[in-house]
Amino acid sequence: MNSEISNQQQPKGLIIVNTGDGKGKTTAALGVVFRSWGYGLRICMIQFIKSSVFETGEFKAARQLNIEWHRCGDGFVFHQEDQDEAAALALDGWKLAQQKILSAAYDLIVLDEFTYPLIFGWLDPQEVADWILHNKPAAMHLIITGRNAPQKLIDIADLVTEMKLIKHPFQNGIKAQAGTEF
Amino acid sequence: MNSEISNQQQPKGLIIVNTGDGKGKTTAALGVVFRSWGYGLRICMIQFIKSSVFETGEFKAARQLNIEWHRCGDGFVFHQEDQDEAAALALDGWKLAQQKILSAAYDLIVLDEFTYPLIFGWLDPQEVADWILHNKPAAMHLIITGRNAPQKLIDIADLVTEMKLIKHPFQNGIKAQAGTEF
Repeated sequence: MNSEISNQQQPKGLIIVNTGDGKGKTTAALGVVFRSWGYGLRICMIQFIKSSVFETGEFKAARQLNIEWHRCGDGFVFHQEDQDEAAALALDGWKLAQQKILSAAYDLIVLDEFTYPLIFGWLDPQEVADWILHNKPAAMHLIITGRNAPQKLIDIADLVTEMKLIKHPFQNGIKAQAGTEF
Repeated sequence: MNSEISNQQQPKGLIIVNTGDGKGKTTAALGVVFRSWGYGLRICMIQFIKSSVFETGEFKAARQLNIEWHRCGDGFVFHQEDQDEAAALALDGWKLAQQKILSAAYDLIVLDEFTYPLIFGWLDPQEVADWILHNKPAAMHLIITGRNAPQKLIDIADLVTEMKLIKHPFQNGIKAQAGTEF
């Protein structure tokens, strides 16, 4: 078999980073989940931040579509007094992510809000970046979302998008909306 | 009934614009579709640009989930010689959008890549913006995606996000990937 043709038939899995202060980082990842589900791809979502909403729209959708969904941040919030527990939960989430990545059982893994454990110093960005680079299965897509993506993560990424806030309804006193925002 | 409470119970439908040169404009809209489907909301998607892919992942997903999906750009491409036909198809798309918006039968309508007919001068941004402002049902969310959103559109929007390209795999010669990019 011609290895060049074989390489073309085996698509390269991308490392995608959605960062910036705007909306749409997680939402764009959900859009990829939606598309990938349409293609019948195997998906695993790991969310690192507890949502303020008990049952988000994406969680309800995922349950109905049998998409694997982990919310490792459940039970913690980012209060000063919870830092140790929050760090421990984030580390557990990263261990879970490593298992899932190594299993090669998925076409797409999303690490949602994963920049926070890196920013807060609970995980070392260089170590995480090196680990991903050396252990991610070649065909698997990996999406990482969150503000202030560390440069080490951007260095290993194939596609980096900054979601930039131009205008926000909270500026006008409008409350967050079910469906569009969570 | 206290009208203030009644107003709070009836959430305000947002006008959302995803613009910029980066990835994620359509994809973030799909994420909102995914979330909204999870909440059981009534969704209508109108796509103004023919995809280069016959059956995109989102189209496959929408068909399986019985989400109403129109691709008014089907059959045209943006070649110089097709300008008249392209304009006519875009105008048909806008008429359809107006019907759907006026019907008040949806909680979320997405006008995907709708900035192009505005940029190309086939539709007048001021007229379109005024029409939306005066005719969109109060509780309905409207998402418009596409590059170079005209200022008139930004003026009437509640939430505007610019998706900014930081790093793109095409720069490294990697082809577009099923699932993540279409």
